[in-house]
Amino acid sequence: MKFTISARDGGARAGIIETDHGAVPTPAFMPVGTAGSVKALEAREVEALGGRILLANAYHLYLRPGTDTLRAMGGLHRFMAWERPLLVDSGGYQVHSLAAIRTVSEEGVTFRSHIDGSEHIFTPEKVIEIQRAIGADFVMPLDHLVGWPADRLVAAEAAERTWRWVLRGRDAFEAGEPLYGHEQVLVPILQGSFFRDLRREQAEKMAGLDALAYAVGGLTVGEESEQTREAIEISLGPLPEDRPRYAMGVGTPDDLLAAVALGVDLFDCVVPTRNGRNATLFTFQGRINIRNARFARDERPVDESCPCPLCTTYSRAYLRHLFMAGELLALKLGSAHNLCTYFRLLDEARERIRAGTFHPWAETAGRRMNSRAEEDA
Amino acid sequence: MKFTISARDGGARAGIIETDHGAVPTPAFMPVGTAGSVKALEAREVEALGGRILLANAYHLYLRPGTDTLRAMGGLHRFMAWERPLLVDSGGYQVHSLAAIRTVSEEGVTFRSHIDGSEHIFTPEKVIEIQRAIGADFVMPLDHLVGWPADRLVAAEAAERTWRWVLRGRDAFEAGEPLYGHEQVLVPILQGSFFRDLRREQAEKMAGLDALAYAVGGLTVGEESEQTREAIEISLGPLPEDRPRYAMGVGTPDDLLAAVALGVDLFDCVVPTRNGRNATLFTFQGRINIRNARFARDERPVDESCPCPLCTTYSRAYLRHLFMAGELLALKLGSAHNLCTYFRLLDEARERIRAGTFHPWAETAGRRMNSRAEEDA
Repeated sequence: MKFTISARDGGARAGIIETDHGAVPTPAFMPVGTAGSVKALEAREVEALGGRILLANAYHLYLRPGTDTLRAMGGLHRFMAWERPLLVDSGGYQVHSLAAIRTVSEEGVTFRSHIDGSEHIFTPEKVIEIQRAIGADFVMPLDHLVGWPADRLVAAEAAERTWRWVLRGRDAFEAGEPLYGHEQVLVPILQGSFFRDLRREQAEKMAGLDALAYAVGGLTVGEESEQTREAIEISLGPLPEDRPRYAMGVGTPDDLLAAVALGVDLFDCVVPTRNGRNATLFTFQGRINIRNARFARDERPVDESCPCPLCTTYSRAYLRHLFMAGELLALKLGSAHNLCTYFRLLDEARERIRAGTFHPWAETAGRRMNSRAEEDA
Repeated sequence: MKFTISARDGGARAGIIETDHGAVPTPAFMPVGTAGSVKALEAREVEALGGRILLANAYHLYLRPGTDTLRAMGGLHRFMAWERPLLVDSGGYQVHSLAAIRTVSEEGVTFRSHIDGSEHIFTPEKVIEIQRAIGADFVMPLDHLVGWPADRLVAAEAAERTWRWVLRGRDAFEAGEPLYGHEQVLVPILQGSFFRDLRREQAEKMAGLDALAYAVGGLTVGEESEQTREAIEISLGPLPEDRPRYAMGVGTPDDLLAAVALGVDLFDCVVPTRNGRNATLFTFQGRINIRNARFARDERPVDESCPCPLCTTYSRAYLRHLFMAGELLALKLGSAHNLCTYFRLLDEARERIRAGTFHPWAETAGRRMNSRAEEDA
């Protein structure tokens, strides 16, 4: 893996991550393909929309189809027909949010499957093994995240445990080998909740690992946007500047541009796809709820400037009809459009970083895109 | 509209229907796009799979998005981005099967919407007006169908009422004009349930209309396959031989080939798409339930010979995983594959009719395709 920064504009950077599965221009947004599928879309459709790297999830893939199956099928790239890079989340977040009963100990996390109630344990070593089987280009260690608001002692303990787990994960990673012939890179996650000194302390320790890339975790767990931004800023401070930085679970268009301004290179979030399935469409003029009756006979595309299959082919009226009639096609078209819009937002961010015009633009562009469009009022 | 029969093999015929929206080689299968969408697929995807004509439904489209909207949007072809022919069912079947409360009188059918309980009336004249607004290439008159088993008197009354409604529909059709500049053709429906003399009597009267195409209705309402076939045979007997004949709601692969053998040219059925969404995949070697555990690590495509997006890209194991994980993509890939298989079945039927080898093939091909595949046992 090689990361090259080709342009800077203040803290923002435009660059390229080169992997054995091809190049990713940064800053980049990773669509969420939790269980080996970006919901309602084929991987090649995501690629055609502009996707260059996907996120998948170790918790989901471990439970279904399971690592034995993934090994038998030659890994997730081949299984889902995606030849570009994959970043695989360790499952720490899903154990936190989905598993019915969980017990965290120094050894790892014991949990019951949200599917069938069966009991499992994730240890730092086990999640590395799972991600070897998946064939992730970017492997995430097990982390312990806490929600917000959080007690300081609880947050400190979780951050310290994450640090110890990152070290165990690194050892397990270094003791193993890729299974499918392509390079895998371990991306340490730093926690610390929204306590400045905890974040700073973790970031300083993580920096010492000299990892090839870093992830800022524990974000978008109930805090305010301002807190997200401050936590990112503090986390990035001590990290080596020439490594890709990934803000986990970020975010809405304004959070995303704010993080780019701080020097983040990689993002993932369910916001574009979940909203797309829920009739909320992003445009550069703001969000519209396509169920609104005012669109019933609106012949225009959702966004005149958008090259996605929805906007180049169908009217707002047709998409509204599909949602009102409960047609499955609505879910695909809405998801495709929102992903395309996210990709285009980051395309423009990269161009503006190169041109040195990122900051004045970013301050308004993200906020406008995330607000309700005037015509939807 | 022009219909040319280019080859015959016994009662089976291969031909071509030419419309203002292009040509349809027959025998042809019409995917069901009830509410202006073949479930989970874009119209252009259906076309790429081999679809040359779609069915839509007047009952559903009348309720949602409504005829005013369809008129404002320039008709259904434009609304759903489908430039090939559309046949639109009158809604008689949906009133029969979906509407909460219905009262049939000589005037028409009064019913409550299955969506919001609102009361509506369909008269023979009204359904013609609805289909003018939709812009159907093939317009179906209102019919009164009965389920099976049926009382003979009830069936006779429904058949006679259908005859009178067909005449009223024809008069309304002849008094009106297409709205969007393309030709529309009225296709009378004949009923008669599974009473031979009723069917024969209706067919003889319908033949006298000298219509450009004919539909055999009242099929697949609970009867045995043998009864379906006999009703089709009796219905076709008196009809002018050089007009396209459409067997409504037929059917499974074996029913379909049996009807082709009898001289049917057009079909529609939810079987391929509904089964596709339900993990049942058709192949020429039989049906497989892809949820079967034996497919968990099966790297082969569902059907080696199939050119659909599923079979050319993904393994059985991946499709099984998508169904087990409840992923939306499964619904699209399953539907696309089954439609492609239906189109290929009729491609082969046409070739074999031209080659004079249809009948020995049809007797086993349909039955095999509709049986459970050996490898799924």
